[in-house]
Amino acid sequence: MKLEQPERSTRAGLTPKEARELFRAGLSVPTAGYSAGYAQANLIIVPKDLAFDVLLFAQRNPKSCPILGVLEAGQTSNELLVDGDIRTDLPKYTVYENGEKIAEPTDLTEYWRDDLVTFIVGCSFTFEAALIENGISIAHIDHGTNVPMYKSSIRSASAGSLTGPMVVSMRPIPAAQVADAVRITSRYPAVHGAPVHVGNPEEIGITDLGKPDFGDAPLMPDGAIPVFWACGVSPQAAVMESRPTLAIGHAPGHMLITDARDSQYQVP
Amino acid sequence: MKLEQPERSTRAGLTPKEARELFRAGLSVPTAGYSAGYAQANLIIVPKDLAFDVLLFAQRNPKSCPILGVLEAGQTSNELLVDGDIRTDLPKYTVYENGEKIAEPTDLTEYWRDDLVTFIVGCSFTFEAALIENGISIAHIDHGTNVPMYKSSIRSASAGSLTGPMVVSMRPIPAAQVADAVRITSRYPAVHGAPVHVGNPEEIGITDLGKPDFGDAPLMPDGAIPVFWACGVSPQAAVMESRPTLAIGHAPGHMLITDARDSQYQVP
Repeated sequence: MKLEQPERSTRAGLTPKEARELFRAGLSVPTAGYSAGYAQANLIIVPKDLAFDVLLFAQRNPKSCPILGVLEAGQTSNELLVDGDIRTDLPKYTVYENGEKIAEPTDLTEYWRDDLVTFIVGCSFTFEAALIENGISIAHIDHGTNVPMYKSSIRSASAGSLTGPMVVSMRPIPAAQVADAVRITSRYPAVHGAPVHVGNPEEIGITDLGKPDFGDAPLMPDGAIPVFWACGVSPQAAVMESRPTLAIGHAPGHMLITDARDSQYQVP
Repeated sequence: MKLEQPERSTRAGLTPKEARELFRAGLSVPTAGYSAGYAQANLIIVPKDLAFDVLLFAQRNPKSCPILGVLEAGQTSNELLVDGDIRTDLPKYTVYENGEKIAEPTDLTEYWRDDLVTFIVGCSFTFEAALIENGISIAHIDHGTNVPMYKSSIRSASAGSLTGPMVVSMRPIPAAQVADAVRITSRYPAVHGAPVHVGNPEEIGITDLGKPDFGDAPLMPDGAIPVFWACGVSPQAAVMESRPTLAIGHAPGHMLITDARDSQYQVP
């Protein structure tokens, strides 16, 4: 298997299993544009003694942390990654010890323990496809960059030892399409749903849109309104603030490609 | 405070706090008809070492076990029961040891431990109010009996040590109103949502509608179709089958009356 990035149309046409096999073999690239129509997901992996706190954090923060599936301790695949292995099938991971990032490995062999529990968390890539289908262009996709993400001044609801800021992703939307963007993303509650904030970044503690905490700086088209959605990096932000001994996430933009179709997460 | 059951109209007009205070003082009656417009809820209480399994069970069985709130170990109230105490504010509880029912006390003082975690689970009383408002009469309410509940042959998704049958509640609905009943209850995903089965009880392992596992035998009006909804007693059925050392639930029909309004759980 060649480890060069496939052509754009080839990437889009890979099955999720084929894409995961490429990443397992060592390809380490952002996953935007891979396996069109299939849901991509955030990861958060913690030792079993912290698992209740993470699941409770998700229950209390459903917009930022919508759980698509859970791998119990010792489990490395489920119906979201058939024949897969959560330890190897993402292109890149982030490992935190005591809240500090210590590594960004391309597989977890060196860090894996049998008491680790994996949470698979919905990702906004799913609703971005729906926005584009409905004629709303997504600036960071047009420019081939990563979505800008910010630690906001909104606090996540805390759970046990976990507490932290809500991380939000931002997309500039033309004023005439803001209502449509709200309506369309509302139909995807399992992948962050409706925006948490429309316009006026200062109100949620973002003083400079040009300096995101994660991802790439945005280009703001004239007349566009910054629209903010709850982001699946929020549990990682809580992990950074709450400093458990070990936690593992995906690397930003380097997601799990699941066997679930985007359309499964749409409500009527 | 008198411990007689108040008149029907008085019961309906009590605030949730007033109703809880009556039950705390010792009144032990089913809660149907109390505090009209406010959501009633199922309880499941377990030691902290089983709490992850219960929350994961709920995540994997959202139709039978929709979580409205969680009291962490040591916590006895939250915004669902302001100024309340989960140990005393229900009219009756069920205590299980090793899967066997050992008591149905009217308060939990004798059984309480500081490592107990409480899960507050949505209840179909909420969507029944919506059905009635929309002209669909509910037989067990008309007859002043408890809703019939059955252990079905549908298995709940298992989680850690927990596994068991999905318990379903049944309401006879005139054939012409079945579609409306589906449509209306679909709008309440946080309180069991749409039916899991319409007609033909044998297909889900129910051989005699006249012999429910919980609640009262139904009267089936001519031409009515038995319609089945996932029931919040399912986690208790899993507890009975999985036999943890200690678990506590509400007694059937003797619910927590919360400060949340039924209308909060309606989606557009």
